[in-house]
Amino acid sequence: MKILVQKFGGTSVENAEKMRRAAKRAIEAAKKGFGVVIVASARGQQTDVLVADAYELNPNPPKREMDQLLSTGEIQSVSLLAMALDSMGYKAISFTGAQIRMLTDSVHTKARIKSIDAERIHKQLNEGKIVVVAGFQGIDENENITTLGRGGSDTTAVALAAALGAKECEIYTDVDGVYTSDPRIFKKAVKLDQISYDEMLEMASLGAGVMHPRAVEFGKKYDVTIHVRSSSEQVDGTLIIHEVPQMEGLLVSGATIQKDLAKIGLLGIENVPGNAAKVFAHLAKHKVVVNDIIQTEVNPDKANLSFMINVSDLESAKQAIEEIKNEVNFENIFIREDIAEVSVVGVGMRTHYGVAEKMFGALADAKVNIDSITTSEIRISCAVDKDQAEKALEAVCMAFELDRPAKLRNKNS
Amino acid sequence: MKILVQKFGGTSVENAEKMRRAAKRAIEAAKKGFGVVIVASARGQQTDVLVADAYELNPNPPKREMDQLLSTGEIQSVSLLAMALDSMGYKAISFTGAQIRMLTDSVHTKARIKSIDAERIHKQLNEGKIVVVAGFQGIDENENITTLGRGGSDTTAVALAAALGAKECEIYTDVDGVYTSDPRIFKKAVKLDQISYDEMLEMASLGAGVMHPRAVEFGKKYDVTIHVRSSSEQVDGTLIIHEVPQMEGLLVSGATIQKDLAKIGLLGIENVPGNAAKVFAHLAKHKVVVNDIIQTEVNPDKANLSFMINVSDLESAKQAIEEIKNEVNFENIFIREDIAEVSVVGVGMRTHYGVAEKMFGALADAKVNIDSITTSEIRISCAVDKDQAEKALEAVCMAFELDRPAKLRNKNS
Repeated sequence: MKILVQKFGGTSVENAEKMRRAAKRAIEAAKKGFGVVIVASARGQQTDVLVADAYELNPNPPKREMDQLLSTGEIQSVSLLAMALDSMGYKAISFTGAQIRMLTDSVHTKARIKSIDAERIHKQLNEGKIVVVAGFQGIDENENITTLGRGGSDTTAVALAAALGAKECEIYTDVDGVYTSDPRIFKKAVKLDQISYDEMLEMASLGAGVMHPRAVEFGKKYDVTIHVRSSSEQVDGTLIIHEVPQMEGLLVSGATIQKDLAKIGLLGIENVPGNAAKVFAHLAKHKVVVNDIIQTEVNPDKANLSFMINVSDLESAKQAIEEIKNEVNFENIFIREDIAEVSVVGVGMRTHYGVAEKMFGALADAKVNIDSITTSEIRISCAVDKDQAEKALEAVCMAFELDRPAKLRNKNS
Repeated sequence: MKILVQKFGGTSVENAEKMRRAAKRAIEAAKKGFGVVIVASARGQQTDVLVADAYELNPNPPKREMDQLLSTGEIQSVSLLAMALDSMGYKAISFTGAQIRMLTDSVHTKARIKSIDAERIHKQLNEGKIVVVAGFQGIDENENITTLGRGGSDTTAVALAAALGAKECEIYTDVDGVYTSDPRIFKKAVKLDQISYDEMLEMASLGAGVMHPRAVEFGKKYDVTIHVRSSSEQVDGTLIIHEVPQMEGLLVSGATIQKDLAKIGLLGIENVPGNAAKVFAHLAKHKVVVNDIIQTEVNPDKANLSFMINVSDLESAKQAIEEIKNEVNFENIFIREDIAEVSVVGVGMRTHYGVAEKMFGALADAKVNIDSITTSEIRISCAVDKDQAEKALEAVCMAFELDRPAKLRNKNS
């Protein structure tokens, strides 16, 4: 039997009407002959309500108990979905993470999946049932309930698809796919028919919040096609797949924007081995997430070291640096709180040149000043003034024709 | 280590303040040196909300899925209680029914307990933790979640006390104990210091809804003292225990009232073997619960057969009888919809006579007409006119001095 995994997020099951709609999707697939496994998140705001209940009792709730608490939201969704399927004439059975032995490590609130008992699910599929599995949760070796952290239900779905030998995992959500850029900012953004895992990973980590990076990594590792699509509209979405030759024909698949960044520069820092490591180790101790580290030598003994952080981490970062300033020895500190970052992503960069030139040219034409530049193999990011961020994104999108479907773009755009 | 089980019902954990109060109770017991196990129900109206969610999707929800859904209410309570205990400086750990392997049969929505893994709880108690266990739920041999039905958390608590070798199980509730009669009707009712399991069982089945009969049966079978007490006031409640000699010094421990009864009489029914059985088998098929069956011979071939049912079952009962009237052959049917039943309960009846006489005398003095009488070894019940029910209860209570603590009553009252 060909197996299809369908994942429905919290907004796609938030009330009875949407649950019935999700159930209909599953039934359509079952009628096509698929063995259907649904993965569901907690309904709407349920998780937020439970988190608030917890903090009312304990400002620092034990993580094991938090996992035990939050796991109930998904269990409610799946038992209700099974009831909806039953009322529509289809046999269904719901499972908790524990019931399918979704074994994880013991890192509560961000556990990692180790194995899944696919047999129990296969058995139910073979009996003609639609199987509904609670996302986001697992158990450790001592039967403690664990959760997989943000976006965990995506990861559950793709991991299940891998364990069950399903070729495709459908992620139903409130957008109808992955766009060339954020449509709230670049209004002319168009939906991508397909995108590679690597591109999606870069986009996800740059704030295009459609898919959780861990789920994409799972898909890449176990060769599961991920289909991001709309839970309300009957249209194809975006396939996340391995790189195919035609992707290389494009310079850029998408462009992203990250606002609310701050940049910290440590000027004239003593350039001796281990000095930079000390800075970042101390920032990590203060739970500050650091991106885009740039170091440049200013003379044989001194360097300028700069990096980006979220504005919300700025106070923690300042404190961390204050604590070690005598130890790491810098001449001056420079802070910008009004930074944004515009990035272009595309596997085509591996084989084409001219992307950087085109991007910088577009920004220059739009009179956007570039603060700093960082790159990866398939990404170029430019830090720009926050006030110019949206203008910058638009200029870049237009330069790479991200307002047009891939097949309609000019060659080498 | 001496172990104490404390059970908190839904109203006793319905908000953060009450949860903290419950946690304080547990901590007080832990400070006295007890190994404390808390059993909790779902918060306030949570279960009702979930039931409504289910029926919105399916008018006849599969029972397995209903159990899966409802079990989440108790899991939320216990993880939150563990957080509350943690915030008050006590180590705590919550367990689902599955985690302590509360093994039941597979009769969803009214499963029966088969065994409990006490080891896992002992281990946590020995590590100095307060253990918080989700009431009402278990798992069957295939790891399906089951629930124990109405009053199930009481049963969980008493069963856990038995499995852990605890001598006492405290049931915290919104009343402060078991009363000689319903204080809403007989205002002068007083709290009982103690009552025997058998008396409590009679009282419970007669509608004194303090404790679920199954929990009382468990206590009796495994010799667990049940202490019914107030979750808000620091006073002793009522101990449910094995019969002790001084109980026999009392004629009557309590009096109960059941309203909303109907009486059906089948007059001149053919008195041949199996005829009555046919009637009740057919009523059972229509899910009508029958009480107080009375049959009297009117001549060698005919008898009058009467029985009580709840008024809410009257239409089903009428239909059932209509369906078999040609088969069982009776001359006439007689229905009263305005019946109530007043009962007195006491193990003293086993050794004293004069209880019936005193009861009938009290009703006669109050000018209450007795429709019919039924008795068990420790109970006498009189059916009376519904309009006279409260007056009847008051008369009986006063006759047996149920307005006074046992030790202050006249001998043989």
